[in-house]
Amino acid sequence: MPVPLVKESDVDVLVIGAGPAGLMCANGLAKAGINVRIIDQRSHEVMAGQADGIQPRTIEVLQSYDLAERLLREGNQMHMAAFYNPSPNGGIERTGRVADIKATTARYPFAVTLMNLNAKEGQAETEIVHAKFVVGADGAHSWVRKTLGIAMDGEQTDFVWGVVDIVPDTDFPDIRNKSAIHSNNGSCMVIPREGDKVRIYVQLTEKEDVDLRDGRIDKAKIGPEKLMQVARKSFYPYSISTKAFDWWTIYNIGQRVASKFSVDERVFVAGDACHTHSPKAGQGMNASMNDTHNLIWKLAYVLRGWADISLLKTYELERRKYAQELISFDKTFFCIVLWEASFRRPRRGGQPRRVPRSHASNLVIGQRVLPHVFTRAADGRPYELQDLLPADTRFKILVFAGDTTNKDQMQRVNALAEEFVHPNNFYAQFGGEEPSTMFDVLTICSAKKDQVNYTDLPAIFRTHWSKYVYPSLLS
Amino acid sequence: MPVPLVKESDVDVLVIGAGPAGLMCANGLAKAGINVRIIDQRSHEVMAGQADGIQPRTIEVLQSYDLAERLLREGNQMHMAAFYNPSPNGGIERTGRVADIKATTARYPFAVTLMNLNAKEGQAETEIVHAKFVVGADGAHSWVRKTLGIAMDGEQTDFVWGVVDIVPDTDFPDIRNKSAIHSNNGSCMVIPREGDKVRIYVQLTEKEDVDLRDGRIDKAKIGPEKLMQVARKSFYPYSISTKAFDWWTIYNIGQRVASKFSVDERVFVAGDACHTHSPKAGQGMNASMNDTHNLIWKLAYVLRGWADISLLKTYELERRKYAQELISFDKTFFCIVLWEASFRRPRRGGQPRRVPRSHASNLVIGQRVLPHVFTRAADGRPYELQDLLPADTRFKILVFAGDTTNKDQMQRVNALAEEFVHPNNFYAQFGGEEPSTMFDVLTICSAKKDQVNYTDLPAIFRTHWSKYVYPSLLS
Repeated sequence: MPVPLVKESDVDVLVIGAGPAGLMCANGLAKAGINVRIIDQRSHEVMAGQADGIQPRTIEVLQSYDLAERLLREGNQMHMAAFYNPSPNGGIERTGRVADIKATTARYPFAVTLMNLNAKEGQAETEIVHAKFVVGADGAHSWVRKTLGIAMDGEQTDFVWGVVDIVPDTDFPDIRNKSAIHSNNGSCMVIPREGDKVRIYVQLTEKEDVDLRDGRIDKAKIGPEKLMQVARKSFYPYSISTKAFDWWTIYNIGQRVASKFSVDERVFVAGDACHTHSPKAGQGMNASMNDTHNLIWKLAYVLRGWADISLLKTYELERRKYAQELISFDKTFFCIVLWEASFRRPRRGGQPRRVPRSHASNLVIGQRVLPHVFTRAADGRPYELQDLLPADTRFKILVFAGDTTNKDQMQRVNALAEEFVHPNNFYAQFGGEEPSTMFDVLTICSAKKDQVNYTDLPAIFRTHWSKYVYPSLLS
Repeated sequence: MPVPLVKESDVDVLVIGAGPAGLMCANGLAKAGINVRIIDQRSHEVMAGQADGIQPRTIEVLQSYDLAERLLREGNQMHMAAFYNPSPNGGIERTGRVADIKATTARYPFAVTLMNLNAKEGQAETEIVHAKFVVGADGAHSWVRKTLGIAMDGEQTDFVWGVVDIVPDTDFPDIRNKSAIHSNNGSCMVIPREGDKVRIYVQLTEKEDVDLRDGRIDKAKIGPEKLMQVARKSFYPYSISTKAFDWWTIYNIGQRVASKFSVDERVFVAGDACHTHSPKAGQGMNASMNDTHNLIWKLAYVLRGWADISLLKTYELERRKYAQELISFDKTFFCIVLWEASFRRPRRGGQPRRVPRSHASNLVIGQRVLPHVFTRAADGRPYELQDLLPADTRFKILVFAGDTTNKDQMQRVNALAEEFVHPNNFYAQFGGEEPSTMFDVLTICSAKKDQVNYTDLPAIFRTHWSKYVYPSLLS
């Protein structure tokens, strides 16, 4: 009798789960030239694949992988947020309307809602995959997390939300803005989507036959019409109705964070697999994608031998802290009335370290480079600095060359260039034959454009004509 | 014996020639729902399909057909222009460097060079096409023009240019800028292209074995190496060389305009078929595309019965005048030294008419709407006004509603709305059952954003939530 053959394969990184965190991870690793495999066992219960809001920092991150363009073109942009509260005359009234994104450093001062991107079911097949690293991005019910026996810490109470996607017929004046409605008859959130579609989140209570103790839902009693009926009570005196439902669901969610994000720096959990949030702050998917954005370059560096495996410890250090802060933020946010109070989102990647430096004092290690427009010296074309520093898993070297039209300064720049290329220096030592595979050198000068000749700069500081910029008038 | 059948077909418009003017025409007519057919008999001698520069106004026009995005993403943008003249020390020196586009009203303050888009040869086939209108966009040697016996007026002397596309190895500091080089040893133009490519135009004289009397060229004597050799003399003391030639050509061109642009408003000539220019001003292809941009909506209106056929007379009136002005401009431009003098490009579409109006006094009939950013009232998203007025062959109605948060003003707006929808008024009379197929209504108010509710405006002035804007802070 023939022995059935099981297919086997070897990869550097196996990513389990093709949701936002998993796809981000596999895409980034593939771009970095890593041997990566992504697998998914999609079932109909999974929320992933349905839309969610993309926050400004996440747009920046997607842009750094050259993935933001279609999102910006086709997604709905939310620029304004409105707040409705009980009116003394009954019903609700608007108590505030503000820019959705208040951070003055945001390159994209708006959030984006995505279209539905439905995944197709694949064929089941058995295969043994040998991997150096595994990333479990397999959602809130993560098989990876459960297999590793990692506990979820946090509140045990679940909240129950109903969600409908509709093309509304309404006289509600903020239907195209992100709106938080808090009435004496219930609470809703309005999230405008592509085209004329709107998503409405309806918070369900015991009044609507939901048993809140264990989040059990009697689905026979609650359908989309019932959700609209609950929503309508909050919208009064405004009317809202729809001819059809594009999609609807009811789900219960707790706010929890995994006790560990990795085991021995070999297996990692990311996204919903290690932290779950209520939908209100609209940060869940963003945190998930930024989890693996944090992990991609570290895995690439370790696999290339550029960094010790201990670098991977910083993943849990940074991302678990962030998830916890997000939940604290979310809890504050939960008091829907408090939306009006101005707030500060938690910082990404743990506490920044300020290193004593005399130059570029606003570049804080551990924080992103702030968006800023520079002009390329060779062709006078304005470029966003962030676009000159793509997420291409190379070390970025920024040379602040000062006023390159000043002769004394150019002597210093030339001296630095000589030192830079010295065989004993890091650039030659680590860069080897083709330093551009490891290092990307960008030179920023402070000279005025009329006098700059890009050819005057030492060749090492302009490895390509596009790598030399001066301050732009557009900034 | 069977009689061979010749295929026959009926179309509203037959476009002959799939170059820039023809493709623009066919695309615009197809978008307008017109039954259009485009044919082309491409031969290897045709320059069309090779790259050319796209000027700011043409980018605006392409954007109005939703065609600019890829161009802006992939094309090379020219932001700066440099001028080199004979140096007292021999060779050349830079005598000026300025923004390539000086017009302060330009939405895109740069020009773009296109990639090569090579067309494939098709199969020859005989067919009889019956068309209500014919557009001959079949190039400088136009079969349509010759068949109609239309003469080309203008200078009979041709100028001879050599062109090479190279990836240069050079110390010339403005190789990524549009550069005009005038030396005592010849003249060149540098046009940077996508990636690291550069196009160099070399003006040829009798010294280089060109017989200028009839533009005859001894191709055996002049190849790309010879062109580089001529160019190098102009570049001195800078060096320039290349390992390979992506493309090269030599061509002779006169500056001429057809005596007529149409016959009986049934057959039209457009683009190079009715006007040819030297390459220096980089306006030829732009004028060609704007020819058919001018014709598209007129043909659509006449075919739909919205306008009398005499409207088509304005095509020749406007575009022939423009072509003549362009040649006057080009002749001035020809004295390459004069590039440094600031200049004004001729206006598009003949003389604008100023109509006495108390409102919107800066909207000049016959001129384009100037670029300006507004904010949509419903969702606070900034939008370029030009993008709210796409080239969709509908009449655009701009309602300037004033301060819509003022009660007295809103009474006037409501009164106007009532008059607007009155059955005796043009909107109902011409618009019929579905006025939106003929009219696009956009309302611009002057109110401050905090107080605007888009639902307060009469429904006729907000036929869709996106059609109501207020001034943006970004402008």
